[in-house]
Amino acid sequence: MDPEMNSEESRNEALDDEIKSFFDSAPPLRDSNGSCDRVVCVTSGGTTVPLEQRCVRFIDNFSSGHRGATSTEYFLKAGYAVIFLYRRGSCQPFCRSLPEEPLVECFEYTEELNVQVRKSYSEVVKSAVREHCAAIEKGLLLKLPFTTIFEYLQMLQMIGLSMKSLGPRAMFYLAAAVSDFYIPWKSMAEHKIQSRAGPLDMRLVQVPKMLSVLRTDWDPLAFCISFKLETDSQILLEKAGMALKKYKMHMVVANELHSRKEKVVVVTDKGNILVQRDWTRAEDVESPLVKLIVERHSAYIEGSDF
Amino acid sequence: MDPEMNSEESRNEALDDEIKSFFDSAPPLRDSNGSCDRVVCVTSGGTTVPLEQRCVRFIDNFSSGHRGATSTEYFLKAGYAVIFLYRRGSCQPFCRSLPEEPLVECFEYTEELNVQVRKSYSEVVKSAVREHCAAIEKGLLLKLPFTTIFEYLQMLQMIGLSMKSLGPRAMFYLAAAVSDFYIPWKSMAEHKIQSRAGPLDMRLVQVPKMLSVLRTDWDPLAFCISFKLETDSQILLEKAGMALKKYKMHMVVANELHSRKEKVVVVTDKGNILVQRDWTRAEDVESPLVKLIVERHSAYIEGSDF
Repeated sequence: MDPEMNSEESRNEALDDEIKSFFDSAPPLRDSNGSCDRVVCVTSGGTTVPLEQRCVRFIDNFSSGHRGATSTEYFLKAGYAVIFLYRRGSCQPFCRSLPEEPLVECFEYTEELNVQVRKSYSEVVKSAVREHCAAIEKGLLLKLPFTTIFEYLQMLQMIGLSMKSLGPRAMFYLAAAVSDFYIPWKSMAEHKIQSRAGPLDMRLVQVPKMLSVLRTDWDPLAFCISFKLETDSQILLEKAGMALKKYKMHMVVANELHSRKEKVVVVTDKGNILVQRDWTRAEDVESPLVKLIVERHSAYIEGSDF
Repeated sequence: MDPEMNSEESRNEALDDEIKSFFDSAPPLRDSNGSCDRVVCVTSGGTTVPLEQRCVRFIDNFSSGHRGATSTEYFLKAGYAVIFLYRRGSCQPFCRSLPEEPLVECFEYTEELNVQVRKSYSEVVKSAVREHCAAIEKGLLLKLPFTTIFEYLQMLQMIGLSMKSLGPRAMFYLAAAVSDFYIPWKSMAEHKIQSRAGPLDMRLVQVPKMLSVLRTDWDPLAFCISFKLETDSQILLEKAGMALKKYKMHMVVANELHSRKEKVVVVTDKGNILVQRDWTRAEDVESPLVKLIVERHSAYIEGSDF
């Protein structure tokens, strides 16, 4: 990745063309009937960092994509159009209750009926296919896959630049687990690293923090929420507060690895808000979380002069 | 991973119990009607190596699992029972022609017909579901998933010990891309590695080569085929030849990253055999490869005194 990629020069004609053809090839949002005036870009899943130029080995970040997929469902319910920027193979909206290999596990073949859904899966398969198709057909869900951190950041930039025209009605909900370290292309081994030479010493450098560039350059008026995941609760809120200030986020969602499906703390410049799953209503923690975010986003839109 | 795990002591009562309950929970092979006297364990996909004890980051090996999934289909055709030891999320037998998200891409929902296969996907979905279900129902395909190298090697050991009683009728077709390097548990960071402290230096040590232990200890009479993948063709055949001798394999399949779907070289102690995809018959390179291996396995069984 070129650390200069955020400069004025890089937004040249070639990139403009790329952005244009990128969004030209994305019919759902263009064909939207205009009833939806808010768009959220939800990022989801982990990014990879190659260790070799002809990539055999890479470093990956753990992330099932469950947070992003679930939140996408609640944003759609709240009337948003969603650009779902997701890691290939990660969890998909409306598909959370499916088994690992849905096609071969949920279906059976009989001579009379051909391929049909197994009875035990009929409800989850029905709702997955129905809800997913409906969102795509209404032009409210655009899915864009990535694998490496290079793909992720380039796509995020294009989406940011393209959503600029929406002003404060655009939102970024950055739930993807983005790699902190990478090996610069020039210092990467060309071929597969050989194992007979003994232990392997590697030096990884920090990925430039692109959140600042998103806020100041790509889409300065958008409402921005980032995530901070830690396994050590001692440093979590401190680090989330630092991220809020440093990257000028509107909200930072702090979550701990072991309790992330039960509760999160939303850190804002007006204080911290604990958001917990409501067990009595059999809902996900993303339900009250998205509700809170949508309220704050509404206030943000009303308060702006755009 | 305990480097002593291949010693006599480790095969204690606890492990015996574990193996027993493991195979007790695997009905397909036990319920087999006995018509199938040869069993191949096909390993497939890459293994991961955690970088932190509470794992957020890990190193992964590139492997789609295409070779293992395709070969499994041809071994089933050739009359083998297959134990498919595969990386979660990697390519599945009979599912190679499906899109990335088969459930939401191949199906549609209509009020009248409920969930049904989209016309454009009807043939691939039908054959995937039919062939897969048939193999499982006949007790000829047992699928066991893994993620980390620790899981992979422990499961391989259990399978090896359990297949020992088959003598030379057992085969190991080791197509999984196993990590060469790992970070020992004791030198692993407990919490997520922090990024603000500057560049990250890591020392990875070599994974003990378990192929020797499989050959000498776990299942000494099984017919064993390992794979060697390189991006540098200069060193490929030399390294494959070394693996053949060092790990006492019966065959080593040498493949280059860019041409691996077109051709491979099978290295044996009687010379090298080039195996190429037959374009005129629209077949995979795994078709002639598995044919060659089955022939050699037959000769091996006939030549043994078991």
